[in-house]
Amino acid sequence: MLDINHRTYKIPTHPTVVVCVDGCEPDYLGQAVATGQMPWLKKALATGVGLVAECVVPTFTNPNNLSIVTGVPPSVHGICGNYLFDTSTGTEVMMNDVKWLRAPTLLAALADAGKRVAVVTAKDKLRKLLGHKMKTGICFSSEKSDQVSLEENGITNVLNLVDMPVPDVYSAELSEFVFAAGVKLAETKQADVMYLSTTDYIQHKHAPGTEGANAFYRMMDKYLGRLDAMGWVIVLTADHGMNAKIGMDGQPDVIYLQDWFDTIIGAGRARVILPITDPYVVHHGALGSFATVYLPEGVSASEIQRQLSAVKGMELVLTREQAAARFELPADRIGDLVVVSERSKVIGTSAARHDLTGLDAPLRSHGGVTEQRVPLIVNRQLPGLDHSRRFRNFDAFDLALNYAQ
Amino acid sequence: MLDINHRTYKIPTHPTVVVCVDGCEPDYLGQAVATGQMPWLKKALATGVGLVAECVVPTFTNPNNLSIVTGVPPSVHGICGNYLFDTSTGTEVMMNDVKWLRAPTLLAALADAGKRVAVVTAKDKLRKLLGHKMKTGICFSSEKSDQVSLEENGITNVLNLVDMPVPDVYSAELSEFVFAAGVKLAETKQADVMYLSTTDYIQHKHAPGTEGANAFYRMMDKYLGRLDAMGWVIVLTADHGMNAKIGMDGQPDVIYLQDWFDTIIGAGRARVILPITDPYVVHHGALGSFATVYLPEGVSASEIQRQLSAVKGMELVLTREQAAARFELPADRIGDLVVVSERSKVIGTSAARHDLTGLDAPLRSHGGVTEQRVPLIVNRQLPGLDHSRRFRNFDAFDLALNYAQ
Repeated sequence: MLDINHRTYKIPTHPTVVVCVDGCEPDYLGQAVATGQMPWLKKALATGVGLVAECVVPTFTNPNNLSIVTGVPPSVHGICGNYLFDTSTGTEVMMNDVKWLRAPTLLAALADAGKRVAVVTAKDKLRKLLGHKMKTGICFSSEKSDQVSLEENGITNVLNLVDMPVPDVYSAELSEFVFAAGVKLAETKQADVMYLSTTDYIQHKHAPGTEGANAFYRMMDKYLGRLDAMGWVIVLTADHGMNAKIGMDGQPDVIYLQDWFDTIIGAGRARVILPITDPYVVHHGALGSFATVYLPEGVSASEIQRQLSAVKGMELVLTREQAAARFELPADRIGDLVVVSERSKVIGTSAARHDLTGLDAPLRSHGGVTEQRVPLIVNRQLPGLDHSRRFRNFDAFDLALNYAQ
Repeated sequence: MLDINHRTYKIPTHPTVVVCVDGCEPDYLGQAVATGQMPWLKKALATGVGLVAECVVPTFTNPNNLSIVTGVPPSVHGICGNYLFDTSTGTEVMMNDVKWLRAPTLLAALADAGKRVAVVTAKDKLRKLLGHKMKTGICFSSEKSDQVSLEENGITNVLNLVDMPVPDVYSAELSEFVFAAGVKLAETKQADVMYLSTTDYIQHKHAPGTEGANAFYRMMDKYLGRLDAMGWVIVLTADHGMNAKIGMDGQPDVIYLQDWFDTIIGAGRARVILPITDPYVVHHGALGSFATVYLPEGVSASEIQRQLSAVKGMELVLTREQAAARFELPADRIGDLVVVSERSKVIGTSAARHDLTGLDAPLRSHGGVTEQRVPLIVNRQLPGLDHSRRFRNFDAFDLALNYAQ
């Protein structure tokens, strides 16, 4: 048994893979299965278990990937966004550094327990966090698959293994490479446990049921079918959902929150942080449905909460304490207010600070409570599982190791 | 001035049309405008006013059409579904008869005030309710456009006027006929005020942004552009939104509520009513996200409320009094409990009583609070309008007559 972050897990006896499909709103699967495009998944749902789970809010990539591999919410592991305001230095920084991680991962624990663990991510930004303290095993990204070394990644010649060129960071192939690598690692028996994590480039552009989305899911279905055929226990989940975020005029439906604060309490006095921010913003313009706000001394959070709640398009405005309790977030890293917009709305800082020229499709994005529903699918029966419990995407390893073996 | 149901309206000085686009989730418009398919609407939004309003819950056709033409919620006009349990006779009946209507309509009042009023609906089921007590004017449906008479409809030879054959009741043409008739009535100067109401056949089958939906909205845009060019004030709204209602297996995601009650309190003791029910159920199988329940003597509504609220997929379970207050419904017509399911879920009676063989596309439906957002668009500036107020689709005539003239 492993005891990690106060949850216990059995050591797996079958090869086991947890797949995190970035931005996989459950309707992507439903539409693709309904129209006959995912024969493997249709069979897996008929013979295994298909649950809809809740992911972590903010419904962003880093917090949820870390929750899945630690089995706990951000209040425990510390990663509450892709991006944060570091109060100790007064600077805004990416949250990719392992110094922000407060909890050990199951991946490292499984490696310590003698399992051959392989982690493949689409973008390199997640790789170090996911591979933290993995003393053995394989850990690389599609993005930098041409730069792997035994020392850093536990593997060489990934491009030869996968037989694909390094994909563009803005492409469906960046995710396909993850699946293709997973299948090759399984075929060459280099791993007992895998964690595969894709990118949501396709989901940001294509709605469920459209050909752009269906092509992605047909591709995925084929690779997962091959893993299944090799006897792998497969748990499929997602970091977050995805929704259209445009107004009736077809433009992004944005609440510019820094501009609002500048008007209400004076220019530059509040600091609005958008934790969706990362270096790859072409497909969403750093616009999501979640923001945190640091207020200056002397401004009442509860008074601002009252005023901001009245702004049309706001789903929730919570104080630090309320947000930390409701969403299980680290209170020391989320600002004085947490702001969530409605399903079709996104939150920006100032109009002048968002470059939307890269958006070549109507905006789709995430971050809010309206993107909290995600798949949690296992290609096995799960005897003894209490179906009335609240399921989270970070129960993926619990289902995989404690019920599916 | 007209004083109708305790709201006042100015007599219009310009030709004015209110258009109710059945099932028009705002994203249909956003996706179509974003991809250049609705040039008229793009211009109307730039030069007029585009609001998102809340429709009436239950988010069904009859309650909302009657709210739009009376300016008040169902608590006042009495039409709270397409279908209800008539407690006086102990039978389940369609709510199309004018005997259920408790409030006068603006359409009849405008006709009484000397305006030439024309009402065109897609399906005939709404015609009598909408035309109630209209002593003059035109009122007919596409569905029965070959059966009009001066006595009953105030017009003859509609097919000649519109120059289209009678459309099939399951077709996009059933709605196109409404728009085409509106344009012809305007061109031939037979009306000063029109109410045009379509059917959601297309919206039940096609998601926003898909070609099936876009073709409908291109068609609509062309007709509304022609009305605009003739100088008509146009208010565009909807009776309700529309969402995909399937599970990851591609099948309708149904909570069979009669089966649940039969298990909990005994077979046939509770009576589950689905107010979406109408004679035309091929495209939704009578599955929506709203139900009412009549409980037998001696069963505690609050105890059942507690148990049913715990069922996964339930958005709201309200007692009669709670639902009447929250959704402004007539308490004497909604049963002991009102049940609303989540965005992707629908409520059925018993599995055996729903014929889903007619569903030839993944289910899309409505009825719940997740389908409450609708467009409220006016092709004019609205000087003096307070944009902070809560907008309802049944403010359409208020905006048209009191602000847009």
